[in-house]
Amino acid sequence: MPDVLFRVDLSKPMAEQDVPGHNRWHPDIPAVVSINPGTEFRIECKEWTDGQIQNNDDPSDVRDVDLTRVHVLSGPIYVNGAEPGDLLVVDILDIGALPGSEWGYNGIFARENGGSFLVDYFPEAAKSIWDFHGIYATSRHVPGVRFAGLIHPGLIGVAPSHELLDRWNARERELVATQPDRVPPLANLPEPRGAVLGTLKGAEFDRVAKEAARTVPPRENGGNCDIKNLSKGSRIYFPVFVKGAKLSVGDIHFSQGDGEITFCGAIEMNGWIDLHVDVIKGGMAKYGIVSNPVFIPGPVEPRYTEYLVFEGVSVDERTGTQTYLDAHVAYRRACLNAIQYLQTVGYTAEQAYMILSTAPVEGRISGIVDIPNACCTLAIPTAIFEKDILPR
Amino acid sequence: MPDVLFRVDLSKPMAEQDVPGHNRWHPDIPAVVSINPGTEFRIECKEWTDGQIQNNDDPSDVRDVDLTRVHVLSGPIYVNGAEPGDLLVVDILDIGALPGSEWGYNGIFARENGGSFLVDYFPEAAKSIWDFHGIYATSRHVPGVRFAGLIHPGLIGVAPSHELLDRWNARERELVATQPDRVPPLANLPEPRGAVLGTLKGAEFDRVAKEAARTVPPRENGGNCDIKNLSKGSRIYFPVFVKGAKLSVGDIHFSQGDGEITFCGAIEMNGWIDLHVDVIKGGMAKYGIVSNPVFIPGPVEPRYTEYLVFEGVSVDERTGTQTYLDAHVAYRRACLNAIQYLQTVGYTAEQAYMILSTAPVEGRISGIVDIPNACCTLAIPTAIFEKDILPR
Amino acid sequence: MPDVLFRVDLSKPMAEQDVPGHNRWHPDIPAVVSINPGTEFRIECKEWTDGQIQNNDDPSDVRDVDLTRVHVLSGPIYVNGAEPGDLLVVDILDIGALPGSEWGYNGIFARENGGSFLVDYFPEAAKSIWDFHGIYATSRHVPGVRFAGLIHPGLIGVAPSHELLDRWNARERELVATQPDRVPPLANLPEPRGAVLGTLKGAEFDRVAKEAARTVPPRENGGNCDIKNLSKGSRIYFPVFVKGAKLSVGDIHFSQGDGEITFCGAIEMNGWIDLHVDVIKGGMAKYGIVSNPVFIPGPVEPRYTEYLVFEGVSVDERTGTQTYLDAHVAYRRACLNAIQYLQTVGYTAEQAYMILSTAPVEGRISGIVDIPNACCTLAIPTAIFEKDILPR
Amino acid sequence: MPDVLFRVDLSKPMAEQDVPGHNRWHPDIPAVVSINPGTEFRIECKEWTDGQIQNNDDPSDVRDVDLTRVHVLSGPIYVNGAEPGDLLVVDILDIGALPGSEWGYNGIFARENGGSFLVDYFPEAAKSIWDFHGIYATSRHVPGVRFAGLIHPGLIGVAPSHELLDRWNARERELVATQPDRVPPLANLPEPRGAVLGTLKGAEFDRVAKEAARTVPPRENGGNCDIKNLSKGSRIYFPVFVKGAKLSVGDIHFSQGDGEITFCGAIEMNGWIDLHVDVIKGGMAKYGIVSNPVFIPGPVEPRYTEYLVFEGVSVDERTGTQTYLDAHVAYRRACLNAIQYLQTVGYTAEQAYMILSTAPVEGRISGIVDIPNACCTLAIPTAIFEKDILPR
Repeated sequence: MPDVLFRVDLSKPMAEQDVPGHNRWHPDIPAVVSINPGTEFRIECKEWTDGQIQNNDDPSDVRDVDLTRVHVLSGPIYVNGAEPGDLLVVDILDIGALPGSEWGYNGIFARENGGSFLVDYFPEAAKSIWDFHGIYATSRHVPGVRFAGLIHPGLIGVAPSHELLDRWNARERELVATQPDRVPPLANLPEPRGAVLGTLKGAEFDRVAKEAARTVPPRENGGNCDIKNLSKGSRIYFPVFVKGAKLSVGDIHFSQGDGEITFCGAIEMNGWIDLHVDVIKGGMAKYGIVSNPVFIPGPVEPRYTEYLVFEGVSVDERTGTQTYLDAHVAYRRACLNAIQYLQTVGYTAEQAYMILSTAPVEGRISGIVDIPNACCTLAIPTAIFEKDILPR
Repeated sequence: MPDVLFRVDLSKPMAEQDVPGHNRWHPDIPAVVSINPGTEFRIECKEWTDGQIQNNDDPSDVRDVDLTRVHVLSGPIYVNGAEPGDLLVVDILDIGALPGSEWGYNGIFARENGGSFLVDYFPEAAKSIWDFHGIYATSRHVPGVRFAGLIHPGLIGVAPSHELLDRWNARERELVATQPDRVPPLANLPEPRGAVLGTLKGAEFDRVAKEAARTVPPRENGGNCDIKNLSKGSRIYFPVFVKGAKLSVGDIHFSQGDGEITFCGAIEMNGWIDLHVDVIKGGMAKYGIVSNPVFIPGPVEPRYTEYLVFEGVSVDERTGTQTYLDAHVAYRRACLNAIQYLQTVGYTAEQAYMILSTAPVEGRISGIVDIPNACCTLAIPTAIFEKDILPR
Repeated sequence: MPDVLFRVDLSKPMAEQDVPGHNRWHPDIPAVVSINPGTEFRIECKEWTDGQIQNNDDPSDVRDVDLTRVHVLSGPIYVNGAEPGDLLVVDILDIGALPGSEWGYNGIFARENGGSFLVDYFPEAAKSIWDFHGIYATSRHVPGVRFAGLIHPGLIGVAPSHELLDRWNARERELVATQPDRVPPLANLPEPRGAVLGTLKGAEFDRVAKEAARTVPPRENGGNCDIKNLSKGSRIYFPVFVKGAKLSVGDIHFSQGDGEITFCGAIEMNGWIDLHVDVIKGGMAKYGIVSNPVFIPGPVEPRYTEYLVFEGVSVDERTGTQTYLDAHVAYRRACLNAIQYLQTVGYTAEQAYMILSTAPVEGRISGIVDIPNACCTLAIPTAIFEKDILPR
Repeated sequence: MPDVLFRVDLSKPMAEQDVPGHNRWHPDIPAVVSINPGTEFRIECKEWTDGQIQNNDDPSDVRDVDLTRVHVLSGPIYVNGAEPGDLLVVDILDIGALPGSEWGYNGIFARENGGSFLVDYFPEAAKSIWDFHGIYATSRHVPGVRFAGLIHPGLIGVAPSHELLDRWNARERELVATQPDRVPPLANLPEPRGAVLGTLKGAEFDRVAKEAARTVPPRENGGNCDIKNLSKGSRIYFPVFVKGAKLSVGDIHFSQGDGEITFCGAIEMNGWIDLHVDVIKGGMAKYGIVSNPVFIPGPVEPRYTEYLVFEGVSVDERTGTQTYLDAHVAYRRACLNAIQYLQTVGYTAEQAYMILSTAPVEGRISGIVDIPNACCTLAIPTAIFEKDILPR
């Protein structure tokens, strides 16, 4: 087992850990440790809400979650020799559950705390608990479904530079300003309340808390990409924006469907992740990897033969309004079509929704040029169901 | 070999075939043949532009293509006993090239005839010719690339009812009306010029030509979905909107990347397709398949181990403007990131663009809830390249 | 479509074709055509028995087959510039059925004409006819089974040198001599009766017919390897033993299980095969490929998620006698275990046997060192069955 | 984490563990614990030689290994309600390394302690140490190779009945008697020296030690099958021969090539395995599973696109003697062909041999009826090599 460079005590909030992590992005959050390229190490992670969700049948904790506290991240890890312009090469060697914590949850967010992809259809909070049986997960709340996990960190990224952070804050502020009174807002701007910033204290804490970006969206540094295929065995190439790269990780998912559509969202879990890091000097320019990370998925994704695939096109299903190549609408319709189908084979709408958000379903942009309709598809592996769900 | 129910003569335009097909959607286009459920049959198809593109090195035919003539379709096939409310079950048994026509083309549309997904970066027409070597394709215009085809009909669908057609026309008219002077328009409204409507003649032709929907977008009837995984061995469930279902097919692609991003778009080819049809009576209500087709992909998709995956987030790359969960923008950025990378390993931007549009690249909606950024990914199988393209 | 370099008329025996092929191995069988490295071409092939088996329900043709006439091969093709010591690189670009001949057969050989792998359990001849539905096969004699073909040439090889041929004949004569009165004999020695030797005539025919090796076993030249994974898209490296290499091909199988255990054996068919050839000068020594061909399988093998796997160990099931690491016995027992199982889910023993010989079942040498038992496994993809066959 | 029902202390031999396991098969070895169907539990296992092999560069420990002490097994586990005639259903939920013991070894056995599959070519002992990096393994003794593990228990089985044990002993004695003076013997007969029999003591120990079967060969009870695909996520159906079934497990392999040809043999490791058990009453007769276990492999086997496949036929390579369908010889020749090839790309013969025994190479019985030659194939995934190993 590689050395554990970041430990978590599940009985305490992130702010009270012996070495606290962070839940905001900022270049000035101090690194917790420095390592050399070539090092293998283990990082322990709390689930993204910092322990607010319980293993029970009551979704009120999902409804009442305090989102100023997310996502609690482990790190940053300072990589010696990494400098702006380099590529940080991160191998995900393995990922697992923390002993005694072999379960996770999926939640549908209520409209009042942000809602989910299908908020207009599912305005209330809901929750399902998933138990891990080695590589498999099942849920007492979604009977008849069992699948192998495609375990991955929902969030892994490097620190932004001051310049990049400023750009993030500027563009997100502008977006919010287009509908300043919207509830929920169009983006989450810096929010000192609930901030955890490692060992920062006092005035420095206050300054950083005011400037630091929220962790919700994926951005140029990677971050909360929620890419289900970024799983065991993957190799990621991150652009480096600050000295030491400052790698952080969290939000481990046992499994997730493409889109993470219930928002809370995959099967969220506490866990550990084993990493190996290396540096390609000057790699950003050499390979043109400047805007976003690039990665190679691992070789052990669960294999499936048979999928049932739902299509969606970009016509608003409520109003019948034609949109122009809106992939967001097309994917929503594919999801709704799948939920409608799964109800005919015995699931409630909520269960169907949570299946799409937790199981290894594939969400694809199939056609994006056939004006005015984008076509998206959602593919469900039929082997995850105990019974035959095909039309006959 | 199953009976050929629709033949094409590649030396003649669709309108002059012994039995002409059609290039518009309308319930009153007469069926070319009627068959019973359980029948296996072959359909021959012309490439979608009706023979306007030549096997040469000059992209002017792509630039000057007459789009009023697309997509030329073979059919409609009337399935005895199929009625509104049923599901038409179509098995794609096999697909192939017409003898003597073992090549296809990919084209980037110029801005003046509609442009492509990345029109702002590629405003000029371009063309690549792809030669088929059994299951493989190569292009003299894109050296060092070879891949197995994931051959599929870009367009397969059933006839709309009058009511459904009216709905299409209304919603697309409304969209166009939002920017009536836009060039190109936001959607292609009914256009009598260039219409081919089977054996219709005279006043009936004129009436239908004025009402019939263009074939460009995918819609509730399937149609131009351009789903690369709808390949050999797939089973499709179509909602039936008119008596006899009236199945039509065309726009065969030897291979395509998700999104068909150059618009013209995949590797476009003449070909044949072997189909088997059946009917599930009352299946629309029974399975809730009412808005769009559902399908099961076939078991012989080319297999790849290793992908290089590019991420994109929904910030406009030209202005830096933050959009709200716009998957269209996120996918564009993933594509642009891939094109930038492929230029560092020796391809021109145009070649890279055409690789993304022809090779079996996977386009995924990875995250669609992490406000304000959608995250899309584009995965390129590295085995399609003769040389190693990974960062080292 | 590439040029057809060898044509067959299915209404005539191989000896009466305009350009006859051959059914023996000998360096002096004249080539039918010469080609340059880099050429793509098509070869048409008759099924291996030269048309003796009919599409009906009567297995008497399998019982009475004249085995002096097998395997009818198309070729030899002379590759310009290929010389002993080189590697002949053959790409299998595609394979298909001849129009109007979209069916094949599987037969259990009766004890009197050689028997099959399980001859002691299946001493009588049996036959199943398989109909091709595009990429799929079904049989009226084996209901409830449908699978995608893994189409391949059972036999593809280059000509032996005189020296190599002499070695073959010597070693096989010695084997036969160990049990000279055995019926059937332990090997098939040269047999002038039934020989087809291309355009050879007169004394030269007689000489060659007396010397030429039978095509039944695989040998150093490739030949009748019956490797199911040598399918579409494969690349083969053959050692070259004579000037021009003299490539021949035949015995096309629509599908086969590992081992080809009923002996007649796969789904045997008439068909065509598209090939591309190239030469690596001096490749035999450079890569140490001197004893047998080496190949890279193609990327479009049908994919399966779920297999039911049967184990067998090398204890003779009839006598209880322990053998020493005999993989032959271990694989026989795995097959018998599978047949016993399939009988509990509704198949006759003969049907089960033919399923194992035709469907894409995997036969593996799992353990070969754990004295005194070899362990072999046979894996059946469960998706080939219409109904669920798992134990519950 | 499920309850640990069997623990090992790696600093002590199996006989001195607090609760000792066993290294012989006998129905009277007492169970260490009893559980109900439906239970999930963890078992810890020592590597098969009981700790005799060290993590160093000296193969003398492999040469001098005391084979009377193998294989040390954890168990037996008594399953309440399981009776002869039932099927014991065992799910392998997960497998991993013991903390601090993230390495394994491969050894070529010297002729004097039994030799390996290719003993005539590799008569001396050799050893390679493999380090685990999460899901991957590398070896300082075999540079340039890295692969994902297909971790599995080489040995898992249930207790034989007295009657079955007697049959084993009788048939193995008869085999040994055919060459009584052979060194090594053809089989390992009961051997009290080195026996570990759980908590048995005194006269009972002596009786059982004299009767108990060695664990080396796979048999009707499963046992040392060394099936690499019996990995994470598999479900096994064991015939039950004694009350409580008495399940034991050991000999965990991080990875293995088909055949385990170096004999010592895979990547041998200490580890833990999480299991779930259930019972199908009367399942042996119902499903005809009476001679050997049957299993369903798990869904997370590492995926590969490209294999280089070596063929072998059943002609003895040393003498040129033709054998009759001897799959053992055919597989040996395929292995030798592969070793010859790998030497041309930079490996020593010993390294090549150990690659074949440790990496996920596929060994298949491709043709077993084409008299007189069996054809076996060995397929090496090319992605396990850092550099391109294909012929060019």
